[in-house]
Amino acid sequence: MSRDPTDRLFRNARLVTLADAAGYGLIEDGVLHVREGRIAWVGRAADLPETLRGRSEDVEDLGGALLTPGLIDCHTHLVFAGERIGEFEQRLTGVDYQTIARNGGGIAATVRATRAAGEDALVAAALPRARALVADGVTTLEIKSGYGLDTASELRMLRAARRLGATLGVGVRTTFLGAHALPPDYAGRADAYIDLVCDEMLPAVADAGLADAVDAFCEGIGFDPAQTRRVFERARALGLPVKLHADQLSDLGGAALSAGFGGLSADHVEYTGADGARAMAAAGTVAVLLPGAFVCLREERRPPVDLFRREGVAMAVATDCNPGTSPLLSLRLAMALACAQFRLTPEEALRGATVNAARALGLDDRGRLAPGLRADLAVWDAAQPAELSYWLGGPCARAVYAGGRRLR
Amino acid sequence: MSRDPTDRLFRNARLVTLADAAGYGLIEDGVLHVREGRIAWVGRAADLPETLRGRSEDVEDLGGALLTPGLIDCHTHLVFAGERIGEFEQRLTGVDYQTIARNGGGIAATVRATRAAGEDALVAAALPRARALVADGVTTLEIKSGYGLDTASELRMLRAARRLGATLGVGVRTTFLGAHALPPDYAGRADAYIDLVCDEMLPAVADAGLADAVDAFCEGIGFDPAQTRRVFERARALGLPVKLHADQLSDLGGAALSAGFGGLSADHVEYTGADGARAMAAAGTVAVLLPGAFVCLREERRPPVDLFRREGVAMAVATDCNPGTSPLLSLRLAMALACAQFRLTPEEALRGATVNAARALGLDDRGRLAPGLRADLAVWDAAQPAELSYWLGGPCARAVYAGGRRLR
Ligand SMILES: [Zn+2]
Ligand SMILES: [Zn+2]
Repeated sequence: MSRDPTDRLFRNARLVTLADAAGYGLIEDGVLHVREGRIAWVGRAADLPETLRGRSEDVEDLGGALLTPGLIDCHTHLVFAGERIGEFEQRLTGVDYQTIARNGGGIAATVRATRAAGEDALVAAALPRARALVADGVTTLEIKSGYGLDTASELRMLRAARRLGATLGVGVRTTFLGAHALPPDYAGRADAYIDLVCDEMLPAVADAGLADAVDAFCEGIGFDPAQTRRVFERARALGLPVKLHADQLSDLGGAALSAGFGGLSADHVEYTGADGARAMAAAGTVAVLLPGAFVCLREERRPPVDLFRREGVAMAVATDCNPGTSPLLSLRLAMALACAQFRLTPEEALRGATVNAARALGLDDRGRLAPGLRADLAVWDAAQPAELSYWLGGPCARAVYAGGRRLR
Repeated sequence: MSRDPTDRLFRNARLVTLADAAGYGLIEDGVLHVREGRIAWVGRAADLPETLRGRSEDVEDLGGALLTPGLIDCHTHLVFAGERIGEFEQRLTGVDYQTIARNGGGIAATVRATRAAGEDALVAAALPRARALVADGVTTLEIKSGYGLDTASELRMLRAARRLGATLGVGVRTTFLGAHALPPDYAGRADAYIDLVCDEMLPAVADAGLADAVDAFCEGIGFDPAQTRRVFERARALGLPVKLHADQLSDLGGAALSAGFGGLSADHVEYTGADGARAMAAAGTVAVLLPGAFVCLREERRPPVDLFRREGVAMAVATDCNPGTSPLLSLRLAMALACAQFRLTPEEALRGATVNAARALGLDDRGRLAPGLRADLAVWDAAQPAELSYWLGGPCARAVYAGGRRLR
């Protein structure tokens, strides 16, 4: 029998299990046993089974450090080519968005660069960004397409996203976001572009098995609810779950629309009202809060966190990492900003980046510390769980494991 | 003759010199020569003096990376004992500030812990925070007292701050902030406390040579302008420059008060009006912007950046790192937040963390890349200077040098 390289016993850990529906599920003087990439046992040192008691090989003494589930970033646009730093500087020196757009800037610039990039180049460009997320504790991340906006380029983005996961050994969930923006070649013909998304892109993506979910950007400056509905209907026909960029800048009923299709999540949701929240609660659709875009766009309307609490809508927190509106490379920082700006509690922020983020991705094998779940783990030099959402910046995770294998 | 351990030639660098009053002063294919802890030569490779041309020892090829002046954090409360993470969590779970204060929380908790801590403990507690700042490019930082609030404890904080600098090899400027808050033992007797500050603390601090400047917290919840003026007058009599926590929550004329004493800086300055800005410009008082507290307190009133530009007030950016209102451990993140939230240009943010921050500390030997200045340097994996203010989080500086010695 060959040795299991993931077989490892962590002891002297403060375990943040999140095992129950509320509370951190903190276990002081905790022990966690990993076997075959999964959590085999978790509990108090005092309760350690006889068979593990005398063990001395592959034992890591964490010296009282905090051990949490690996963080899950459930909304990113991590795969893209080119950069928008020049445009960032232009905007701040007073060049207006129209001028930037007229000069080929904005999302069009990213689409152009992404279409021109080969799959290898896309992976290479995204790798340092993914590594930054991992450094701060991320072991699973969602990555959307949406900068290709033609069939071949969208497929290439999704393949690059999958390769990124394999390269780094992290979990990657891919989302097809063909309805992200209207490509220049379809200017003034949004419905025709939605035809292309539904009739060509979506079947191709489903055929290739490259997407775990389907997303759209439902907004005044994006696609309208009728167009979004068409995309969702096609996704449903192909057996793919949906989620939605919803109610970020106005209330078009996007959250309710996502919920109406049993959506995994509605994301941004700053303008979501009571009806939307009730629909989400009923459907189990997660509200994904994205403080990076909120801060970078200097928005003032905050997501209705109290309403979500009242209605029992689960909340997640994600980086939305993208070159235009949220160049945010730390999920822990997203948690901290969600506390500072949206008044999430530190426990909500942590659940939002673990157990609720897993739910937003349709995953039930991670996001908590419990026997049988994936051994996705982050070790922190922190005294208490709230500390993860307290510091802005500062030291990253001390160690990160995905499927029991050490990533850093 | 013994070898100079700082003698080093950096080449293949993109130098951000900030040499002139405006612009990045970018030198492509740049070379920088360090000798005896100072910048000995800086310029284009093509212009390299004959004597340095053939050099092969102690040469670092930066592969086109960005080389900037080391960052300068000109406003921190880095030295303190204890923690306020529990209080952070309480506030977000709905416990009001009054209740927290009644239970001994708030700044009183930090004062209690700091008074109880020995000098070694203060240094040890602050070290990881200082290291986090250094990791993101800081080579000089200001550290205030103000959690001792009695003579012995204030002196101990300042000694700990100085030791921190010596321990890490970074530049530290100390600021005496006895008038930070009213200690519990002086409740209701603010003027009596100011007597103590002026008649006992300030002379003791000056005698010991432990402070480079004197600060106060001038605010409705702090000390009033008349009390502040008394502190400043005593500082002036003792030959110490002043600066002020001014106009953060209301306009008490704090910026003008600091300027009236030829103050190095007025800090926060959200509520500063035209008169204050004009007084600052005339006196050369720097406006120190602190986006960390702004974001963490969820403030809405932004500092009048356009007014400062119009009146020619120099702007700096700092972390304000402190356990209550700005647990911010990255000056680069402060720069990014200043761009996102205050609409500083990336160039203003970088000047604010280098040349203008030096000025806010009364230093003219650092903050730019020019011959004769200290070899305080940061190397970044960045394509252009604006990138330093673009990403939120993500990789830290690739290398950091203070006085020509590598810190990381
Ligand atoms: Zn997004
Ligand atoms: Zn301060």
